[in-house]
Amino acid sequence: MRTIHDYQHHLGWDNSRQPALTVEPGGTVEFHTIDASGAQLGPNSTVADVATLDFGKVNPVNGPIAIAGAEPGDSLKVTILSFDMAGWGWTANIPGFGLLADQFPEPALHLWKFDPASLTPAAYGPGGRVPLKPFCGTIGLAPAEAGLHSIVPPRRVGGNLDIRDLSAGTELYLPVEVPGALFSVGDIHAAQGDGEVCGTAIEAPGVIAVRFDLIKGENLAFPRFTTPGPVTRHLDKKGYEVTTGVGPDLFEGARAAVSGMIELLCKRYKMSAVEAYMLCSVCADLRISEIVDMPNWVVSLYFPRVVLE
Amino acid sequence: MRTIHDYQHHLGWDNSRQPALTVEPGGTVEFHTIDASGAQLGPNSTVADVATLDFGKVNPVNGPIAIAGAEPGDSLKVTILSFDMAGWGWTANIPGFGLLADQFPEPALHLWKFDPASLTPAAYGPGGRVPLKPFCGTIGLAPAEAGLHSIVPPRRVGGNLDIRDLSAGTELYLPVEVPGALFSVGDIHAAQGDGEVCGTAIEAPGVIAVRFDLIKGENLAFPRFTTPGPVTRHLDKKGYEVTTGVGPDLFEGARAAVSGMIELLCKRYKMSAVEAYMLCSVCADLRISEIVDMPNWVVSLYFPRVVLE
Repeated sequence: MRTIHDYQHHLGWDNSRQPALTVEPGGTVEFHTIDASGAQLGPNSTVADVATLDFGKVNPVNGPIAIAGAEPGDSLKVTILSFDMAGWGWTANIPGFGLLADQFPEPALHLWKFDPASLTPAAYGPGGRVPLKPFCGTIGLAPAEAGLHSIVPPRRVGGNLDIRDLSAGTELYLPVEVPGALFSVGDIHAAQGDGEVCGTAIEAPGVIAVRFDLIKGENLAFPRFTTPGPVTRHLDKKGYEVTTGVGPDLFEGARAAVSGMIELLCKRYKMSAVEAYMLCSVCADLRISEIVDMPNWVVSLYFPRVVLE
Repeated sequence: MRTIHDYQHHLGWDNSRQPALTVEPGGTVEFHTIDASGAQLGPNSTVADVATLDFGKVNPVNGPIAIAGAEPGDSLKVTILSFDMAGWGWTANIPGFGLLADQFPEPALHLWKFDPASLTPAAYGPGGRVPLKPFCGTIGLAPAEAGLHSIVPPRRVGGNLDIRDLSAGTELYLPVEVPGALFSVGDIHAAQGDGEVCGTAIEAPGVIAVRFDLIKGENLAFPRFTTPGPVTRHLDKKGYEVTTGVGPDLFEGARAAVSGMIELLCKRYKMSAVEAYMLCSVCADLRISEIVDMPNWVVSLYFPRVVLE
C-alpha cells in the first residue's frame, strides 16, 4: 500500500496540478487526512475559533493521484477499504453556511470524543448518542475545465459530495474528465445524515484506504455507487420521528421539514434550537417522499429515535 | 369498528362536504377503498385503458369523517392499524404525469398479482421481485380555504402525500384547519419508493383501518409522523445501486439520478426504459445527500439490489 501524507493536500480542483503519485489500476493507497477546518479546529477549540475560521484553508483534500491509463469517458472505480480516525471530531454552525443560515446567524461548536476502534455511539452534550459510520465527505477527480475550482461545491466528477454511504465497503464510480483522472480525497465524517443540514457533520481527521480500478468507456453522466449491504441499520432499530414540508419547491420543503424537527426536539428534549439543528445534521435523513403530485412535492426529515431514546 | 363503504368516496377536498360519519376521539374506522384509477383499471386491463383514463375520476378517497371536538390548531393523530388488500395492483406510465414525463410520452401498464396475507415479494414481468409494504397514498383533512380543491396535490393538511412509510403501526399527525377536521383516506399503495418517480406506485384496492385521537393546540405547520420501528428492512438486505444528480436545482438533480438508474437497469438487466422507470417508482428511494455545499446539491436514487439479485 502506498501512502499520501497529511502535508500532501490541496485546497481546490485544478487539472494542471502535478500528481503526488501515479498508481496502476488495482493499486491501493492510504491517505492521512486532516479535518475539514484544515487543522484550524482541534479537540480543545472553543466557539470563538469558529467565528474566526479562515475560509481559505477549509476542506483540504489529499492528492492528487494519477491513475495510469485513465482517459476521459472512463470511470474510476474507487473501492473504499477502511477508515482509522483519531478519536475526536467537531460539528459547527458556521455563520452564512447551512440550510437555515438565515435563522442561525451565530457560531456554535460541539466537540465529540469517541472510540475509533469500537465506533460506539458518541455522546452529544445536550442529550443523545449518535451512532457512527465514517465516510469520505470529499472524494473526486479534476474537472476538464481549466483553472482553479472551489473545493466547496461537488460536481459531476465528484468532490464535496457528502454522501453518507461512501463508507467502508462501498464501490464508487467517478466519471473521468482528464488523462490520469487526478483523484483526491479527504474530509472524513464520523457520522452525517442525508442532507448535512447545518453544513457540517462530525468532522474528523484520520486515515482513509482505497483501491483504484478502471472501467473503460462507461461515459457516466454523474457519480454512482454500490453498497455491499444495508446502509441504515446502525440507526433504525427504534424507528423514526419524521417531519415534512409540502409545497412546489423542494428546497423550501427541506427547510420546512428541518424547522419542524428542530421545534419538536426543542420541545421534547429541552435542547436549544442550534443544538437540535446540529444534531439533525449528524444523524437525520432528508428524503424526497413524492415528486410527482403536481404542483406540490413532499420532503421528509427522518430523525432516528435510537439517538434520544 | 365503524365502516365507510366503497361508494362513500369523493374526488376533491371541500370543507362544505357533509361528513359520512362522526366519531369520538379514540374511535376506529375501517375504510373500503377503491384503487387510484377509480375502478377504471382492473386485473384484466390493457395499456389501451391507460390511454383513455378519465382524469375526472382518479384518486378517489373515502370520507369525510368528522372527529368530535376537533378545532383549528389541533392535530388529528391517526394511528394506521392495518391493510387488507384484494391481491392485485397496477403501475402505469400516464402520459403527461411523472418526473420524466417529457421522456416517456407513451402510456405503459404493468399488472401485479400478490398474496395479500403473506405479502411475499411480487414478481415484476420484465424481471425482479418487489417487496411489499402497503400504505395510504392519500390521507388528509379538509383545508380552511373554501371551495373544491384538487385531490392530486398534497397540502399542509395532508392529502396525496405518497409517503411510503404511512404503513401499519405508523402514527400520523395532521394539522386541523376546520371544525371536525373532515378526514378522508384512500389510494392504497402495495409498494412505492421515496419519490414515486413515474407518478404511480403499486396501486391497489383494499381495506384500511385507522384509529383517531386528538392533540389539542399543537399548531403543526405540516404533517409529521412516528414509525414504530425500521422502515427499510424489507428492501435493504443486499445493499443498493445508487445513481446521483449534482447541481444547483434539486428537481433537476432528481431527474438526473433517475435517468442514470434507468440507463443502468436497461444495460444490466435488458429491460426497456419505461419498464425500468416504473420499477424505480415502486421500489427505489430518492434521498437528498447534501443540500449545503453551495451552489450544488446532491440527490441520490437508491435502488435495492434484493429486487433483482
